[in-house]
Amino acid sequence: MDENAIFYAGRELSLPVLNIVQLNKTLHVKGDEEMKTVVNDTFWNRYKELVRTGMIPYQWKVLNDDIDIKIEKERNDASIPSEKSHAIENFKIAAGRTKGEHYGWVFQDSDVYKWLEAAAYTLKNHWDDDLKKITDEVVDLIADAQEKSGYLNTYFTIMEPDHKYKRLGESHELYCAGHFIEAAVAYHQATGSQKALDIAIKLADHIDASFGPEDGKIHGCDGHEEVEIGLMRLYHLTGEKRYLKLSEYFLLQRGQDPDFFKRQFREDTGKPAIGGLYNAPLTYFQIHAPILEQDSAEGHAVRLVYMCTALADVAASTGNKDLEAVCRKIWRNIVDKRMFITGGIGSTVNGESFTLDYDLPNDTMYCETCASIGLIFFARQMLRLSADGEFGDVMERALYNTALAGMALDGKHFFYVNPLEVVPEKSEKDPTKSHVKVVRPDWLGCACCPPNLARLIASVEDYVYSESGKDILVNLFIKSEMVRGYEDGEVTVRIDADYPRDGKVSIHVNNSTKDAVKIGVRIPGWCDKAGGKVIDGNGESTIEDCAVVAEKGFWYAECSAGATDIELELDMTPKRWYANPLVSEDVNKVSIARGPQVFCAEGVDNGDNLHLLMLPKSAALKCSWQDELLEGVEVIEADGLRTVAAREGGLYRTTKAKSSEPARIKMIPYYAWANRGRNEMRVWLNEKE
Amino acid sequence: MDENAIFYAGRELSLPVLNIVQLNKTLHVKGDEEMKTVVNDTFWNRYKELVRTGMIPYQWKVLNDDIDIKIEKERNDASIPSEKSHAIENFKIAAGRTKGEHYGWVFQDSDVYKWLEAAAYTLKNHWDDDLKKITDEVVDLIADAQEKSGYLNTYFTIMEPDHKYKRLGESHELYCAGHFIEAAVAYHQATGSQKALDIAIKLADHIDASFGPEDGKIHGCDGHEEVEIGLMRLYHLTGEKRYLKLSEYFLLQRGQDPDFFKRQFREDTGKPAIGGLYNAPLTYFQIHAPILEQDSAEGHAVRLVYMCTALADVAASTGNKDLEAVCRKIWRNIVDKRMFITGGIGSTVNGESFTLDYDLPNDTMYCETCASIGLIFFARQMLRLSADGEFGDVMERALYNTALAGMALDGKHFFYVNPLEVVPEKSEKDPTKSHVKVVRPDWLGCACCPPNLARLIASVEDYVYSESGKDILVNLFIKSEMVRGYEDGEVTVRIDADYPRDGKVSIHVNNSTKDAVKIGVRIPGWCDKAGGKVIDGNGESTIEDCAVVAEKGFWYAECSAGATDIELELDMTPKRWYANPLVSEDVNKVSIARGPQVFCAEGVDNGDNLHLLMLPKSAALKCSWQDELLEGVEVIEADGLRTVAAREGGLYRTTKAKSSEPARIKMIPYYAWANRGRNEMRVWLNEKE
Repeated sequence: MDENAIFYAGRELSLPVLNIVQLNKTLHVKGDEEMKTVVNDTFWNRYKELVRTGMIPYQWKVLNDDIDIKIEKERNDASIPSEKSHAIENFKIAAGRTKGEHYGWVFQDSDVYKWLEAAAYTLKNHWDDDLKKITDEVVDLIADAQEKSGYLNTYFTIMEPDHKYKRLGESHELYCAGHFIEAAVAYHQATGSQKALDIAIKLADHIDASFGPEDGKIHGCDGHEEVEIGLMRLYHLTGEKRYLKLSEYFLLQRGQDPDFFKRQFREDTGKPAIGGLYNAPLTYFQIHAPILEQDSAEGHAVRLVYMCTALADVAASTGNKDLEAVCRKIWRNIVDKRMFITGGIGSTVNGESFTLDYDLPNDTMYCETCASIGLIFFARQMLRLSADGEFGDVMERALYNTALAGMALDGKHFFYVNPLEVVPEKSEKDPTKSHVKVVRPDWLGCACCPPNLARLIASVEDYVYSESGKDILVNLFIKSEMVRGYEDGEVTVRIDADYPRDGKVSIHVNNSTKDAVKIGVRIPGWCDKAGGKVIDGNGESTIEDCAVVAEKGFWYAECSAGATDIELELDMTPKRWYANPLVSEDVNKVSIARGPQVFCAEGVDNGDNLHLLMLPKSAALKCSWQDELLEGVEVIEADGLRTVAAREGGLYRTTKAKSSEPARIKMIPYYAWANRGRNEMRVWLNEKE
Repeated sequence: MDENAIFYAGRELSLPVLNIVQLNKTLHVKGDEEMKTVVNDTFWNRYKELVRTGMIPYQWKVLNDDIDIKIEKERNDASIPSEKSHAIENFKIAAGRTKGEHYGWVFQDSDVYKWLEAAAYTLKNHWDDDLKKITDEVVDLIADAQEKSGYLNTYFTIMEPDHKYKRLGESHELYCAGHFIEAAVAYHQATGSQKALDIAIKLADHIDASFGPEDGKIHGCDGHEEVEIGLMRLYHLTGEKRYLKLSEYFLLQRGQDPDFFKRQFREDTGKPAIGGLYNAPLTYFQIHAPILEQDSAEGHAVRLVYMCTALADVAASTGNKDLEAVCRKIWRNIVDKRMFITGGIGSTVNGESFTLDYDLPNDTMYCETCASIGLIFFARQMLRLSADGEFGDVMERALYNTALAGMALDGKHFFYVNPLEVVPEKSEKDPTKSHVKVVRPDWLGCACCPPNLARLIASVEDYVYSESGKDILVNLFIKSEMVRGYEDGEVTVRIDADYPRDGKVSIHVNNSTKDAVKIGVRIPGWCDKAGGKVIDGNGESTIEDCAVVAEKGFWYAECSAGATDIELELDMTPKRWYANPLVSEDVNKVSIARGPQVFCAEGVDNGDNLHLLMLPKSAALKCSWQDELLEGVEVIEADGLRTVAAREGGLYRTTKAKSSEPARIKMIPYYAWANRGRNEMRVWLNEKE
C-alpha cells in the first residue's frame, strides 16, 4: 500500500497527502450532506504526524505496559495508582482471557477508548493495515469484555460485579461508556466497523434501559459528565432519538436530587473506588442546583466543560432555548471572569476546580490539559448555536496555547497541569505546588490528558469549519480543504495559509450549487486590523478593515456559483495584553501575544528570577522566525531591564532597590515551553511604565 | 484580699498594680542574683488583664468542655478532631477517676500544660486564691495521671499502654513532657509548689533513664522538639546537669539516624495516632542532616524554632561554639530569607513548613501564631549569646505583629494562621486556602496557639531585659521595673514609656553596687534616627543620633553608683518598607510600618478589592491616635488611588485600564485586624511611582 495514500472514511483517495488540490473531486459522495475536511497544514501536519507515528504507537505500548517509562503521580497523593497502566490487561481479565485484579483508576478503561478514538481519526486520514489490525483486535477485546446485558466496565466486572451503577458519584461507569461510544462512532466512521458500533448501541441501550424518569429505572446521572456527549454522537450517527432523550435526561437530572450520590454511597456496601470523593462540595459534580438554574462555571473544570459541550449539543439539536440560555450564561462566566489568557481553566488543584470570579493565580492554578480540550469541544458546539466569532476565539486560544502545551514537542511527554508561572524550586519544595510539574513526565498516574490530546489533534480538521444555518463558517486558519455536499451540488472551501507564522490567509470557494452561499470568515478578537479582498466573477472588492465590518466576529462574503477567492491579511504584530484589573495576580503585569499565540519567557533564555525582569511599556517587540529552535518558532525579543537584587543583606528596607541592568528579554510561544529541561517560566511579565 | 494587690513570686507587694514606682524597695531579696521584672504598661496591661480575667477562665472552661463554642478545624481535613477539647477529661481517665477513651490529638495534654504555665505567670503577678485552688487541683490531677515509673502521657496511658516511646515520630510524648516541665517550673517559681516540681523531676528522670547514648536506652529523639526546652528550664532551676546533658543529647541526636522514626513505626504494632505523618520529608522533623550540619530553616516551622530555642540555650549555658554557630546560621537564614515582614514564618500549609529562600507568599503562607512565639523564644536565647540588637528587633517584630494578631481583642478568638493578604471568598471557595481563616474561630481542633499566646503574654516581662556578660540590656520598651541583685547591692532599671504609641522612652537606673554597670538600650533596626540623653551625677550628655553610635544595635550608657536617667526619643514617623526584590510576591508593593508595628488595610475601611488601591510613593502618611477604635490604635491615612475596574467586559485587553479615582487609604496596625467582622485585608499595597 502506498505510504502516502490519503484516506477518507476508509476509502482511498487519489491524491498524495501533501497535495489536496483535487480532494474535492474524490471526497464527496452525492447527497452526503455533511462537511468533510482534510488538513494539510505546515503547523498541524507535524502534530498530526506526531500523533500517527509517535503518540499512537507510544501510547499503545503504555496501555500494554510494554515500555519502560516513569509514570508520575499528577500530584503528591499516596492514593494515586502510578505503578503501571494495566489498561489493556484490565480488559483481558474482564474478557476472561487472563486472570487477575483490576489495577489503576476506576476510569482506566477510558484511556483505551480515547486512544482508540485517536487511532480512528488517524486511520481516516492515513490508512494503515497494521494499525487497523490492532484496533480491530481492541474492538474484539472490548466486545469480549462487554457483558451479555450490554454492560461494559472492567473495574466493576472484575472487582465489584454486584455493585454496578450503585456508586455513580465515583464510579465513572457512564463516563467510560461515553468515551467508548465516542470512540465507536469515530471508528465506525473511519473504518466502517459495524462491530464497534454494535457494542456501542448495545451499551447505550443497556444504559437507556437502566436510567430514566420511568419507574424501576435509576433516577440519577454520572458523577463525571461524558456519557451525554457520547449519546449525542450516537444520536447524530444513527438518528435514534432515544439517545438524544437520554442525554437530555442525564443533563436535566443534575441538581434535581443533590443527595443522590451520597445516598447511593451510604446505601451501597461495596468498597469505595475513589477515597474522599464524597467530601467534595456539590459544585464539584455540578449538582449544586438544577442545571437550568446554573449560571456560572463551578466545580471540577473538565466535568463542567464536558457538561456544557453536551448541553450545547442538545440545545442546538433540539432548539431548546432554556438549555441554550444556560450554555450562554456559563460561557460568559468562563470567558469574562474565569479563564486564563492561555485558554486554561480551573483555578485550584483542590478538586481540579473553578473557584470564583477573577481568581486566576498564575502559579497555583490547575489549567488541566483536558479542561482546555473540553473548552474547545464546548466552543465548537456553541458555534452551532450562533455565528459568534468569540467562540472561535476561545477555541483558538485554548488550542494554540494550553492544549498544545499539554504535550512535549516529541509527543511523548505530557503535562496534566499547565501553569503560567513556574519556579522549579517552589514546585519541588512546597508540596502545595506539587501538581505543578516543571518538566513533562513520560506518563501520568491519571492518564486522561495524553490520549485526549491525541484524539483532538487527530481530528483537528473537525474544528476548522462549521455551519450556521445556511452559512459556512471558517473558524480556524488551518490549511485544509472542506467539501459540503448538497442535493444540487457541493461547496468546496480551500484554505491556504501558513498560520500562525503568517497572517495571510487565502480562501478559495467553489460553489457548484445553484444558490449563493455565504462564507463567514472569523476575524479574530485579538486582531484589531485585518485587510480583506473578495475576487469573483464580478471582479474584485477590497475591504479596508474587516475587523470593523465583521458581524459578531465574522466577515461574510457572498459566493455565487463558481469560484470566489477571499484574501485576508491579519495583522500579526505582537501586542501587549493586560488583564482586567480585578485579576489581582496580574496587576502591573503584561502578557505578550502574537496572533493567537501567547508568549512566555523561559529561564534558559533569560536566566533565573524571571520576576526581576521588567518589560518597558515603550520597548519595541522584535519578531523573528527561528527555524532551528523548538521545531521552528517565532521568537519575540525586547530590550528590557532586570532589577539587581542582592542575595545578602536584610529582607526589608526603607529604600526601594532601584538599580537595574539592561536585559534582552526573549520570549517563545507558550505551547513550546519546557522543552529544554527544567527551568523557570513566566507568561505575565512585570511591566515598567 | 485586695483586688489591686500585686504579687511577685507568691509574695504580696506593697504597691497597687498601676503604681510600681517603689517596686524595687520590696521586690529584691538580697543575694537573689536574677532579674525580676514587673510590667505596668498601658499597652501590655490590657493584654495581661485579658489573659488573667479572660483567657485563663475561658480556656479553663474550654479544656473542661464546659462552654458552648464552635471548635473549628484549622484546615479542611477530615482527620482533625474538632468535636470538643476533652483535655481535662483525658487526665481524669488516665488518673482512673473516670472511665472512657482518649479524645483529641495525641498531644492534647499540652493544652493543659500551657494553660497551667500561663496561670502560673498570672499568679506570680496577681495572686488569686480561687485560681490557685484550681491550678493546685490540676497539679493533683496530673500527679494522679502520672504512672509510678514517672511516665506521663494520657494518650498512651489510656489507649496504647504497651506502645510507650515506640512511635516517637508521631507520639509527641516528649513534646508533652517538655510542656509539663515548663509549666511545673513556672508554677513552682510562682507559687512554690513542690508537688508540680516533683512530678516534673520524676518525669524528667524517667526520660533520662529511657533515652541516651548508653546501651539499653533508646537512641532517639521526639518528632517535635520541646522536651529540650523543658529540660533546660529544669536545669536552670535545679542546677542538675543531667537535664542539660539530656537536652543536648536529644538535640545532637537529630539527623544521626534519619530512618529512626520510620523504623520505629514499621516495627511497632500500635495504631497510628497521626495518619500520614511518616510521609513527611525528613526536613519536617529537622532530621535531614546532623544538627551540626544544618544551616537553614527547614521543615515544620514551630519545630524548627523550638529546636533552635533549646540549641541556643544549651550553647549559651555550655559555651559550645559549634552549637552557637548552627544557631547563628539558621537565624541568618530565617531573618535574611524566610521571614515575613510581620515576623511570621512558615511559607506553606503543607507540613506547616518553611519552603525555600525568598518564597514568601502573602495569601497561602502559614505564619502560625506558635511559630512566631517560638521565634520570640529563639530570639531571647540568642540575646544570651551576644548583645545584638537584631535579636531584639525580630523579637519585637514577631511580638507586636504576628503573635498578637493570633488573638482577637476580646481574648476569646484565635488565629492559627496569620495571613498578610486575605480575600474572604478565596478562603471560602478555594480549599487550598482553607487554612487561611478570615475571622478568628472560638477555638481550634489543634489548640496549640491559644494557650501558647496566653503564656507568652503572661510572662512578657521576661523579654524586656536581658543580661550580656555584666551588661544589662533593655530589649523592649515596655513600662516596667526590673531589679537585679548582686552580692553588694542591686541595680534597678525602670522604663517609663507609652510605647508603641509614643517614641519617648525614659529609663531610670539606680545602682546601689559599688561598680558601674553598663546599660545597653536597643536602638531598633526600624529606627534610623534616635535622640538620646544621659543625666547622672556628672551632669547631662546629649547624643545627637543614638542609631549612629549604637554598637550592634545597642546604645550603651555607663551607670555609676547612684541614679542615672537615660532619655531616648525614637522617631516614630511611619515609613515605607520594601522587600528584597528576590521576593517575587512583593514586587511593586510597599508595606507601611510605624515603629515596630506593621500596618494593613482592611476592607471595612477601604472597600473590597484592596489590590486596586495604589499608594503613591509621594503621598504623605498621616498618623492619628484613635482612642475609640479597636481598643485604641494609631491610624495611618494617605491620599491614594483606586483603579476603576469594570465588572463587565472582556478579561484581557490590549489597553491597560488607566482610569483611577482618588481613594483615602486607611491603615490600622496589623495585630488589630479582623476584629470588625469578615473582610479583606492586605499588608503589602500596590505602590504607584
